[in-house]
Amino acid sequence: MSWQHVTLGQRVLFGTGEAAAHLAAEVERLGAQRVLLIAEEGIADEVTSKVDVAARVTDVAPHVPLANAQRAREQAAGADLLVSVGGGSTTGLAKAVALTTGLPIVAVPTTYAGSEATNVWGLTEASRKTTGSDDRVLPVTVIYDAALTASLPDDLAIASGCNALAHCVDSMWAPRADPINQALATAGIRALSSGLRAIGSLAGREQTLYGAYLSAVAFASAGSGLHHKICHVLGGAYDLPHAQTHTAILPYVLAFNAPAAPDAAGRVASALGGDLISLYDEIGASHVLRGVPDVSAAADLILPSVPVSNPRPVTKEDLVTLLAAATAGLNPSGAFA
Amino acid sequence: MSWQHVTLGQRVLFGTGEAAAHLAAEVERLGAQRVLLIAEEGIADEVTSKVDVAARVTDVAPHVPLANAQRAREQAAGADLLVSVGGGSTTGLAKAVALTTGLPIVAVPTTYAGSEATNVWGLTEASRKTTGSDDRVLPVTVIYDAALTASLPDDLAIASGCNALAHCVDSMWAPRADPINQALATAGIRALSSGLRAIGSLAGREQTLYGAYLSAVAFASAGSGLHHKICHVLGGAYDLPHAQTHTAILPYVLAFNAPAAPDAAGRVASALGGDLISLYDEIGASHVLRGVPDVSAAADLILPSVPVSNPRPVTKEDLVTLLAAATAGLNPSGAFA
Repeated sequence: MSWQHVTLGQRVLFGTGEAAAHLAAEVERLGAQRVLLIAEEGIADEVTSKVDVAARVTDVAPHVPLANAQRAREQAAGADLLVSVGGGSTTGLAKAVALTTGLPIVAVPTTYAGSEATNVWGLTEASRKTTGSDDRVLPVTVIYDAALTASLPDDLAIASGCNALAHCVDSMWAPRADPINQALATAGIRALSSGLRAIGSLAGREQTLYGAYLSAVAFASAGSGLHHKICHVLGGAYDLPHAQTHTAILPYVLAFNAPAAPDAAGRVASALGGDLISLYDEIGASHVLRGVPDVSAAADLILPSVPVSNPRPVTKEDLVTLLAAATAGLNPSGAFA
Repeated sequence: MSWQHVTLGQRVLFGTGEAAAHLAAEVERLGAQRVLLIAEEGIADEVTSKVDVAARVTDVAPHVPLANAQRAREQAAGADLLVSVGGGSTTGLAKAVALTTGLPIVAVPTTYAGSEATNVWGLTEASRKTTGSDDRVLPVTVIYDAALTASLPDDLAIASGCNALAHCVDSMWAPRADPINQALATAGIRALSSGLRAIGSLAGREQTLYGAYLSAVAFASAGSGLHHKICHVLGGAYDLPHAQTHTAILPYVLAFNAPAAPDAAGRVASALGGDLISLYDEIGASHVLRGVPDVSAAADLILPSVPVSNPRPVTKEDLVTLLAAATAGLNPSGAFA
């Protein structure tokens, strides 16, 4: 055993229907006087009903365009706390503000994106995304309330939850995988698989939200493995929908790596309570990749990003096979025979 | 699900035979110029061979006597980093210095005590122990090296490892138990039970050390449950050996609580790969409590400390039964029939 692990310090408050009370308590605990709220129109009124909001940023956009970040940073003048209410793009915008202002963030997530538990930021300018990690962008407190995910339709909840599952599975063989983040990932898979099976109920949403938090903690620590490298390249090159693309790719990466990582695959299967495709079938998740017009060109784009830590060597042919199988929606277990 | 969880930020470097190199890298990363070493004579020479030590404190004593802490604080004048090498008492002395000086600690543990992963400090004056929690005393970095535990004889290693196991088991029903610290505790039990079964080997020592770290993280977060309250009162009242007392009491608390906490008991059993007494028999751990002359008087002392969170109500009679069974070394499974 030889490994290094960095645990990020953070406070998590979890309770259905408790977000407004938890937020008020946190604002008071932090002694904040001037809250800058970052939230799209129409979703944060209830959550912020018990706190004074000094100013509000609403122009949230995917991948955090630099112009939006700069406008938000100007609005942050005089603020002493950032409160974000929304999905990954909203949390990302708050992080962009924290990055230059050093303001603390209290994050209230409404999806399973997981950005709230990481110190990773991203900014996009002229279609070019820059990412980095900085402890100043890690929210000091995360407030989880499964009732806030109720507006997410079941099919999007399932894709978002499978995206969280991908954080866990990829953590098993990511560059900084270690026993701690693997243990957190395993607990995350267990929560997500039970939560996704019951996504129509509030209890299922709670389990999924809890699992998504664990998945983000594991992923932030372990880094991007093969799955995430593939999805990032595809997402950037073909402007694919984030969660759906991750959902489609995951079973193929798992099937590809499993023979070379039997321990990891065994832990994943045990935590899933079966195989991943059975779970997908049960919950109605799609493993059909859409929007990649030329799998050979895509494989060429991906190949330089393949992590050296991957347990199985990856050739261009392997990537072509993987992408073709995903595009055709084949059963992954036979795709690499 | 309704819970709050605070994760303490910390860096962990784990590698057998790597402590000296890891310590040198950390001292450089932190930019420290004047290291105050806290370590008993004769154990830290190899570990600190690659760093400059400006001053050294050697008068380490159990429970951190205030006089020792004050002498060490005087020696800390001018230091910019505390490096502790030793067991719980040594880490505790470093924490006492950090508490008033704010100096960062790099901790190099040589037992499975776990103090290095918590923000809890303790000081003793005139036989009275005061404890508290303060994030300033949490070591910024922990360096684990299983080779440093080689000087711990197998029987003490087993008692120290069972003490770590008690951190995990008690986390299942402690006052601040939550899904996160329960997941970490479960992973800790798994590591400890496999490590303790192989304590004679370096691989077993590594697993035990890893499990002890998880146990401390879980315990720091979950707080003291029934087991720890019983042991703290007994230890204080009768000056009992720490690890051995925890080892003896644990199976009785588990047997007592199990019927009222079947989920927790099931997770413990599953992670142990069987029942606790079988593990004890296999590894040669003793569940015979020694040094409590009057179980009725002891029960009176313990009763006011019983946590309200305990899953099963606790009467004085229950405590008498528990302590009498432990003193007699009865099979715990029949003790509460």
